[in-house]
Amino acid sequence: MAGRDCGGDCGPGRANEDNARFLLLGALLALYLLGGAAVFSALERPHERQARQRWEERLAGFGRRHNLSRDALRGFLRHFEEAAAAGVRVDGARPRWDFPGAFYFVGTVVSTIGFGMATPATVGGKVFLIGYGLLGCSSTLLFFNLFLERLITGIAHVTRWCGARRPGRRAGRRARSPAGGAAGKPSVRVVLLALGAASLALCCGAAALYAAAEGWGYLDALYFCFVAFSTIGFGDLVSGQQARYDGQGLYRVANFVLLLSGVCCLYSLFNVVSILVRQAVNWALGRAAGAGCRRGRGRGGPPRRNAVGPGRVRSGARGAAEADGSSGARRLSGEMVSMKDLLAANKASLAALQKQLSEAASGRPRRASTPPADDEFSGGVGAFAVMNGRLAETSAGR
Amino acid sequence: MAGRDCGGDCGPGRANEDNARFLLLGALLALYLLGGAAVFSALERPHERQARQRWEERLAGFGRRHNLSRDALRGFLRHFEEAAAAGVRVDGARPRWDFPGAFYFVGTVVSTIGFGMATPATVGGKVFLIGYGLLGCSSTLLFFNLFLERLITGIAHVTRWCGARRPGRRAGRRARSPAGGAAGKPSVRVVLLALGAASLALCCGAAALYAAAEGWGYLDALYFCFVAFSTIGFGDLVSGQQARYDGQGLYRVANFVLLLSGVCCLYSLFNVVSILVRQAVNWALGRAAGAGCRRGRGRGGPPRRNAVGPGRVRSGARGAAEADGSSGARRLSGEMVSMKDLLAANKASLAALQKQLSEAASGRPRRASTPPADDEFSGGVGAFAVMNGRLAETSAGR
Repeated sequence: MAGRDCGGDCGPGRANEDNARFLLLGALLALYLLGGAAVFSALERPHERQARQRWEERLAGFGRRHNLSRDALRGFLRHFEEAAAAGVRVDGARPRWDFPGAFYFVGTVVSTIGFGMATPATVGGKVFLIGYGLLGCSSTLLFFNLFLERLITGIAHVTRWCGARRPGRRAGRRARSPAGGAAGKPSVRVVLLALGAASLALCCGAAALYAAAEGWGYLDALYFCFVAFSTIGFGDLVSGQQARYDGQGLYRVANFVLLLSGVCCLYSLFNVVSILVRQAVNWALGRAAGAGCRRGRGRGGPPRRNAVGPGRVRSGARGAAEADGSSGARRLSGEMVSMKDLLAANKASLAALQKQLSEAASGRPRRASTPPADDEFSGGVGAFAVMNGRLAETSAGR
Repeated sequence: MAGRDCGGDCGPGRANEDNARFLLLGALLALYLLGGAAVFSALERPHERQARQRWEERLAGFGRRHNLSRDALRGFLRHFEEAAAAGVRVDGARPRWDFPGAFYFVGTVVSTIGFGMATPATVGGKVFLIGYGLLGCSSTLLFFNLFLERLITGIAHVTRWCGARRPGRRAGRRARSPAGGAAGKPSVRVVLLALGAASLALCCGAAALYAAAEGWGYLDALYFCFVAFSTIGFGDLVSGQQARYDGQGLYRVANFVLLLSGVCCLYSLFNVVSILVRQAVNWALGRAAGAGCRRGRGRGGPPRRNAVGPGRVRSGARGAAEADGSSGARRLSGEMVSMKDLLAANKASLAALQKQLSEAASGRPRRASTPPADDEFSGGVGAFAVMNGRLAETSAGR
């Protein structure tokens, strides 16, 4: 939509870079989809053919045995399809729209899991769903984001606590990041490891419970956990749909808690992994721009400084640290930067100056969690970063 | 998980505030779910009872007419359920796992729509899905976020262009935000209106196409559009599943484009609406803290300055603007702030100083899109804002 627009609040180089990143990611995703489609088609097609053939044989056999015409059977099955859409199963499933069932349903709506084990069939239900989902999905998105915020704060707390117990290692770390811009913040790697371990443990534990309670195989239960926690929610396997369970109330609560924590964990994990994807795209973009520059030097290609890969940034940061040498040296992020390596040395000392100024003005040391503005915005991606940075709040602006 | 942890990189007041916001939102969501469950249960339960009763009658009638035992019919229907899970429909659905079908499937995986019209049935397919989905969902999340970024940049471009054509109004706006911190950025209201209008137009247009192509009623098609674009994806209605369409190739492309743009639009809309939800939660929190303060003054409640609602912030911003008066006055965001009204006047002039310093150091005017650091972090919510602000990039940190 706005793929080729320049925002105008930035140089044309930055806009080109942003557009190029967006388009490159889109192209890579298209390739990923094509590759995935080929693999799934190869894996699943034989099974589908087999299942269809088996069904045709069974249908014909049943008709022959009971002397039923194909049309009569088709009419009967059409009625069954209609009933199945309203929640009927051969082996007595629980009611869909009693209060616990409806609660499960709205939970799958606001989390966008959408199993589809129950779907509104009335006009009123469908209309209400649209309004209800709009507010509910937005609020749940906010909830997930606040969860992620709390989680990273917790991880920061733990890593600092661990660092404080090993003062030798901590001093070594301090020497590497003397300006405090990144001090006390967990790295992407640490958060990824923590989240990955938590998600894996949760999936494995939940799968064991589901396998026991639902009578699924362990692999099926694991597959259900991933599909549900990632909010894909096919609905081929849905927990809690049988008419009776041992310890029904407890199982319902456990199911709710597991789904909630699983969805929160996998949402956070996806967000952290997407940082790595972004870095990979930036790296590819830097490589492509570098190759284009070497091939098309003097032919009006994009200027090299607008497409810097992590490797080049790293050397820029090192250069800044060496040039500055004082406590003002700071880590630069690995994100794609615009003009950054040009101005790195200036900005490094500026950051120290700003810090001193801020402390002088407020009469107390500045909060460690407040990064320098350029550090923050070099990675200006993402739903909230984008909006916080680029929107004037209406509540103050009116 | 980390709900009660203080990050330690911030005062205890800020941590309390963050925890309170998270817990309040969780409580409000629980109420929202309970209310929604009650409404859906009331709306849908009669229809479910009716459908079950009708099915029981039809089942009994069919058995009587053709002299079939209930057990024989149940066995037959169990076979049909098995076949239906593999994609068989009474009225010849298209193959699920040919290449276009598999492409549609992987599209619903990475976008987390997950209709479930086709689901992997083999062990290999299920295992591959977990790895494929993990990377695919993360990349698509990044794609949505970059789309949102491009979209807001485009809207900023359009609003500035409109402002430039009406110089009188623009001068008036400038006078209201002289520091340039929010100048040229579209407000949440403008983005919400633009996105809401775009989503509505897209849903209505797409519904007209789907209603014509699939033979659904218009309301059903509209309901399908919302369920698909919001990535809920129940799977009760799925486009493109019939064996034949007029202009099949064109319809497939249109279906893909509509789903892609619809999902991007609604994801962006949810994010913008969640800003409003956050403001509402902050307002409620401020009210609650204010009431608690009045009731429990001197009983060790949380200090009032750590729980400021938008109303109070607005007056603080006005006070700062009056106290400063120069071009250094800047809008404060409507977000909940910590220590902000205490230090507002100091920070307002500090922001101007920092800007001058930055321009002096870099030899050119600072980019308008770079906000002052405290403005950025007053609204430190959200997946990416959180991570950009709180994580040290490993690529630079190693």
